Amino acid sequence: MNATYAVILAGGSGTRFWPASRVARPKQLLALGGGATKSLIATTLERLQPVVPFENVYVATGQHLIDATRAELPSLPAHAFLAEPKPRNTAPCIGWASHVIARRDPNALVLVLPSDQHVSHAAGFVDAVKTALASAETGVITTIGIQPTRAETGYGYIEVGEQLSERVARIARFVEKPDSERAEAYLSSGKFLWNSGMFFYRAATMKAAIARHLPELSAGLNAIDTAAARGPEAEAEALNRLFPTFEKVSIDVGVLEREAALNVVSAEFGWSDLGSFASVWEHSQTDPRGNAAPAGTILVDSDGNLVFDARSAERKNAVAVLGVREHCLVLTDDATLLMPLERAQDVRSVVDALVAQGRSDLT
Amino acid sequence: MNATYAVILAGGSGTRFWPASRVARPKQLLALGGGATKSLIATTLERLQPVVPFENVYVATGQHLIDATRAELPSLPAHAFLAEPKPRNTAPCIGWASHVIARRDPNALVLVLPSDQHVSHAAGFVDAVKTALASAETGVITTIGIQPTRAETGYGYIEVGEQLSERVARIARFVEKPDSERAEAYLSSGKFLWNSGMFFYRAATMKAAIARHLPELSAGLNAIDTAAARGPEAEAEALNRLFPTFEKVSIDVGVLEREAALNVVSAEFGWSDLGSFASVWEHSQTDPRGNAAPAGTILVDSDGNLVFDARSAERKNAVAVLGVREHCLVLTDDATLLMPLERAQDVRSVVDALVAQGRSDLT
Repeated sequence: MNATYAVILAGGSGTRFWPASRVARPKQLLALGGGATKSLIATTLERLQPVVPFENVYVATGQHLIDATRAELPSLPAHAFLAEPKPRNTAPCIGWASHVIARRDPNALVLVLPSDQHVSHAAGFVDAVKTALASAETGVITTIGIQPTRAETGYGYIEVGEQLSERVARIARFVEKPDSERAEAYLSSGKFLWNSGMFFYRAATMKAAIARHLPELSAGLNAIDTAAARGPEAEAEALNRLFPTFEKVSIDVGVLEREAALNVVSAEFGWSDLGSFASVWEHSQTDPRGNAAPAGTILVDSDGNLVFDARSAERKNAVAVLGVREHCLVLTDDATLLMPLERAQDVRSVVDALVAQGRSDLT
Repeated sequence: MNATYAVILAGGSGTRFWPASRVARPKQLLALGGGATKSLIATTLERLQPVVPFENVYVATGQHLIDATRAELPSLPAHAFLAEPKPRNTAPCIGWASHVIARRDPNALVLVLPSDQHVSHAAGFVDAVKTALASAETGVITTIGIQPTRAETGYGYIEVGEQLSERVARIARFVEKPDSERAEAYLSSGKFLWNSGMFFYRAATMKAAIARHLPELSAGLNAIDTAAARGPEAEAEALNRLFPTFEKVSIDVGVLEREAALNVVSAEFGWSDLGSFASVWEHSQTDPRGNAAPAGTILVDSDGNLVFDARSAERKNAVAVLGVREHCLVLTDDATLLMPLERAQDVRSVVDALVAQGRSDLT
């Protein structure tokens, strides 16, 4: 197999986990889920260790997050961190990273994955990644699709087409987040998988695909390559000049959905995109009454609650919950949020209210 | 009218308002209700101003609360503070205060009242107090009874007997906190009033009543009087020696219920004993959706909540409440409590849990 490289996507706006997440501290920098003490991005890197050497890992993030992100990943070298000069959605970012990797190793096999997902079974993850890399090596961009366990309306779906082997199939089509009726139909059909947002390709395959589907982006990335040949200063100049001009488009819309053939590896490894505090509660260790709360929390006659305490040690205090059902209490040094867990999808409305009140310092 | 004196009862265990209240910071030292910025005891003193000169006010409290209580009442002179050497319930405490006042002014008219009540209409309060003092001046211990507005099970009741004038009647009997069926019957009968815990008497009347019903207490108090005649050191010695030996008994059980004749003044002045956070919510200013919360609280799609923030300025942070119905969030520097308002009567169970977990530092 060719040498394997990883691109960890670490942007993010930080609204769904307010007040724990912020513009300057998005979800992947938080220790979410199951009594975790490490950030999601640090756990994501750990999970890759069996398949990608750390010197082959890249992390794409925004300028304003570079320092915080490096602090979470001290085992990565400086060259690993790719700072987008301006956010342009995923196609320019992944295209740029792919060109950077192809310059270093034209035969590179690349794995792109989000920085903020939850995986219960790391071994199953590694197994699926290996299968997907083998598929990608044949020259076909390959994704991982998750066997759905419920009629989830918060995920995109992948319709499975022709089966190529026991675990690899062609993709018939991508489907946006469905309404609940469609989600039920997808689940019962057995033909749909959740789109995990992970995909795999040969660097040369992606370069060619971008050249076909997004020729302007391709030309810009080639110009950055040309500048890079003249040295790091020229490269930085070209990047800062050209990157902000790239069209904002996602890799799904700009490239993947336009490809004639894509593969999907079907997998099951306790995956979640941890889309909200409700999802964090679901993947947390709970007491027998379903409460996920730090040790020492006083829980009296309470069921199914999440207490998420992200305060610094000197700010932490005793937390008591009496007679409460399925609520979420989030505590940080500078803010406190209370809501029923079923409203966890609506945290953005609090952030909107803060902005409307001129409290952008808290967003 | 004879000169009027007041005894403000300021003991209290501090469990019903945990974590805002503590053993060392009981309810009367808190700013509870209606966006109040002053403590209940400071407001109680203010309310007395039209009827009792401050130099005639006494405050009975425990040794451990003296400093905190004096800090809340800077306009009172040092002699105002009566520190019980040991808590012995209300009869020894009121007996002692009455003897102290009688030594100073044998013709004193005395008003005894709790330190931690809420009154919406201060003028109505003053009017009722004047009526009760006039009744007490005739030599009959007199109470204020509140016209009930609901079938409250959290208060004691007074059955009204023979009407003496438009607002003054004999008391037929005292009734303990009833169950809800009885409370309904009391309310619909029109013959019952809530026991406000305030009462009025001539100092000489109370001394004689104690001598009749609690002769041992009377003998002890007389011995302290004799010592006081020898000077403050002898008085302190006698107090510290004798007071802890007094039988623990309430003024209601030990004296009032044994009196042949008692009067009650019926009144209505927006009274509440603020028995729990639910009662605080009820007497607070709320927004149009019924939320009582500090200015600046972010309230989105939420109704009927109480946010009680007793943190120090440097510990306060932004509080957001999203989609929550009728809950209570209490924030102090060292603890956080969440509960539905309907569970506010059960806060003691949290304090019990803390004690069971060895966290008496938080009680």
